[in-house]
Amino acid sequence: MVEERTPILVSEAIKRVMEFSIKGKSEYISLEESNGRYLAEDIKADHNIPPFDRSPLDGFAVRSKDTQNASSTNPVFLEVIETVGAGGVTQQKVTPGQAVRVMTGTIMPEECDAIVMFELTKEKKENGRTYIEIKRPFNSGDFVSFEGEETKKGDVLVKAGTRIHAGVIAVLATFGYKNVPVVKKPVIGVYATGTELLELDEPLEPGKIRNSNAYMIQAQVEQAGGEAKYYGQLVDDFDQCYQAIKNALGEVDVLITTGGVSVGDFDYLPQIYEKLGANVLFNKIAMRPGSVTTVAEKNGKLLFGLSGNPSASFVGFELYTRPWIKAYLYSETPYLEVVKGLLTKDFPKPNPFSRFIRSRMVFVDGRIAAEPIGMDKSQVVTSLAHSDVLVALPGGSRGYSSGDEVDILLLNREGSVNPFKDPTKLRSGEGR
Amino acid sequence: MVEERTPILVSEAIKRVMEFSIKGKSEYISLEESNGRYLAEDIKADHNIPPFDRSPLDGFAVRSKDTQNASSTNPVFLEVIETVGAGGVTQQKVTPGQAVRVMTGTIMPEECDAIVMFELTKEKKENGRTYIEIKRPFNSGDFVSFEGEETKKGDVLVKAGTRIHAGVIAVLATFGYKNVPVVKKPVIGVYATGTELLELDEPLEPGKIRNSNAYMIQAQVEQAGGEAKYYGQLVDDFDQCYQAIKNALGEVDVLITTGGVSVGDFDYLPQIYEKLGANVLFNKIAMRPGSVTTVAEKNGKLLFGLSGNPSASFVGFELYTRPWIKAYLYSETPYLEVVKGLLTKDFPKPNPFSRFIRSRMVFVDGRIAAEPIGMDKSQVVTSLAHSDVLVALPGGSRGYSSGDEVDILLLNREGSVNPFKDPTKLRSGEGR
Repeated sequence: MVEERTPILVSEAIKRVMEFSIKGKSEYISLEESNGRYLAEDIKADHNIPPFDRSPLDGFAVRSKDTQNASSTNPVFLEVIETVGAGGVTQQKVTPGQAVRVMTGTIMPEECDAIVMFELTKEKKENGRTYIEIKRPFNSGDFVSFEGEETKKGDVLVKAGTRIHAGVIAVLATFGYKNVPVVKKPVIGVYATGTELLELDEPLEPGKIRNSNAYMIQAQVEQAGGEAKYYGQLVDDFDQCYQAIKNALGEVDVLITTGGVSVGDFDYLPQIYEKLGANVLFNKIAMRPGSVTTVAEKNGKLLFGLSGNPSASFVGFELYTRPWIKAYLYSETPYLEVVKGLLTKDFPKPNPFSRFIRSRMVFVDGRIAAEPIGMDKSQVVTSLAHSDVLVALPGGSRGYSSGDEVDILLLNREGSVNPFKDPTKLRSGEGR
Repeated sequence: MVEERTPILVSEAIKRVMEFSIKGKSEYISLEESNGRYLAEDIKADHNIPPFDRSPLDGFAVRSKDTQNASSTNPVFLEVIETVGAGGVTQQKVTPGQAVRVMTGTIMPEECDAIVMFELTKEKKENGRTYIEIKRPFNSGDFVSFEGEETKKGDVLVKAGTRIHAGVIAVLATFGYKNVPVVKKPVIGVYATGTELLELDEPLEPGKIRNSNAYMIQAQVEQAGGEAKYYGQLVDDFDQCYQAIKNALGEVDVLITTGGVSVGDFDYLPQIYEKLGANVLFNKIAMRPGSVTTVAEKNGKLLFGLSGNPSASFVGFELYTRPWIKAYLYSETPYLEVVKGLLTKDFPKPNPFSRFIRSRMVFVDGRIAAEPIGMDKSQVVTSLAHSDVLVALPGGSRGYSSGDEVDILLLNREGSVNPFKDPTKLRSGEGR
């Protein structure tokens, strides 16, 4: 009576999803709107930085030759012929024995080749002229910022697929990107299924719970860089669900549903995939929570059937949907980054399947560590508010103790090149 | 001739800024718009989770007493009188020898006290009735999710000052927050100063550079949780700058300027603070880059005078402005989090002052490490695109070698309770 499903490894599930990865189109948006978006093109320097030889401080531009014999007992006096601020250029030619007062960022006067900072000089006035006293020699190039010493024209500064943040914006502004080539956000449709769901403002009633997954997933979509399109809730009615999902699929790049993928009497998603003629990539993963996570494909478009349990749904999104979105956005590091770290609490339960424990990242003596949050029933929604990592315990392992080294998946880092690998194989014959 | 300024420690500068911290007002916004905002109130559970005893899986609700003598040789048969999906309630009273077919999330029928999963039963039909065969005894409570076992009514789930993300949104939705109390964003005005600045779409010309700081700082403000208000660029003209800054100050919660705070001839900010009657908290910090970072206060409102150098400006914002914004947003962890970690490259330069090196966070054998990016001249803008941490080398230290343990400031983590402390005191008599 109960349908038999064959669980696959997490790594295999990720692989099957990513076989359908596609790259989004690009568009131009204004620099001010670009924070958080993904670059669609490599950003190359179209000029040298600095764009000209310049003074990196407030001081005097001098000809180093003039200072060659300067010492405290034999100071040299140079006539200050002009003051030039940043953004200005020298109006006069600087001849031997002359200097120009310059500010931080001022272009070097052509004849000068060294900068002497204010603090190393003393000024004096004589016959209406200003002189500075210099008590040590300077070499050609001293304290000059040279054209191109930071960045050469043509250098690739930031690669396509990089998430734009304040530091990237500084580079874009420097190179005059008033408009920025970014990847169009993939539109990710979201449907919540289940007669038990109440909308946010409906009063509680027996047997019903509030729809939290749809809102959580929309936020996960945004955080991953996609655009969420919320379609609402579906009650447990096959025809209604089928029509709604079929219609939505035509309007989005990916469709996420929560609930309805298990083996319950009203879990209609499996039948809907069948009626749609969609190819089910998998409908069972050797993991907890989220073993019923299902992904199907129709004409290259993916349908993510996440669990109805909040935590299972959360984990399913991060493991499978997130990398698809990041790859769409040209990211070269679409996968969750995994690092080795310490577990700070005992986790005595054996793990027949890979288990993902919602945890908080902490640092213990310079080592990364993960603190599991509360109990780990897949329904526990409140612990999600405090998680920024997932601890991955391999399937087939006994319990773990505080201090053990474990794999930690970082939810808030941009990502990694390598997909998460199951550390051990699923042991055969271990139940559902 | 050059004004003498007294440098203070980084920790002292942070302390002086935070003496003027204030808390923002709150407002209600819709849940859908709340991602990235800060909670203005503790979120408390207004009902138990689960809100009722329920089945955590697809199976049969039974009276455990009926199964007491069940074994593989002496199976018990229970009549299935009804099927109830999640969101439904049992219509009939369950009497001895009866069971109810239930789905994940279904409320427990009143008379039942255990759940038997589908896989442990066998169905048979007889005389138009359906029976399940059970071959082992179940105890009262077996596989039942009890009301309140995750969260009790009245529990504080998420604290005020928490940044809202997907997991927090799941909690808010669960408790029916259609509208969410968040802290109003502080309005942070931004002015760039300097005749050398070109706007984004102006062609390069000798002596001029593009204004990158204003755009970078706007993004930093957004990332910290504030609302940036860009006022444009100011040329080096005292009266114009004074009027502009005075007017802007009336419209914002904090005003940031970049450039114009050093001792150059056209660095007008010091005089502007004086004419405004503002109290200068400090105008010199024992740090590189950003030693000229200045903060002044007028009627409790802060003016951040950041350096004109992109990297100095970036660091100044993160060290001094960011914690002010976070505290305004009720964060209990407004300061940059500092962890001990490894340096991955030699940094042979001695450090008369605390030095902040733009770096990339990496993990080496489960230890956090920082990889300095390129050279560290304070003008180098391109390295900002690749930095997610700052390495803090204490003032008074010689060079550092690859593998040395250093303080690492994490730019992308929410923050820490403790302000950054200078590891050593400034040694007296060291230069400017």
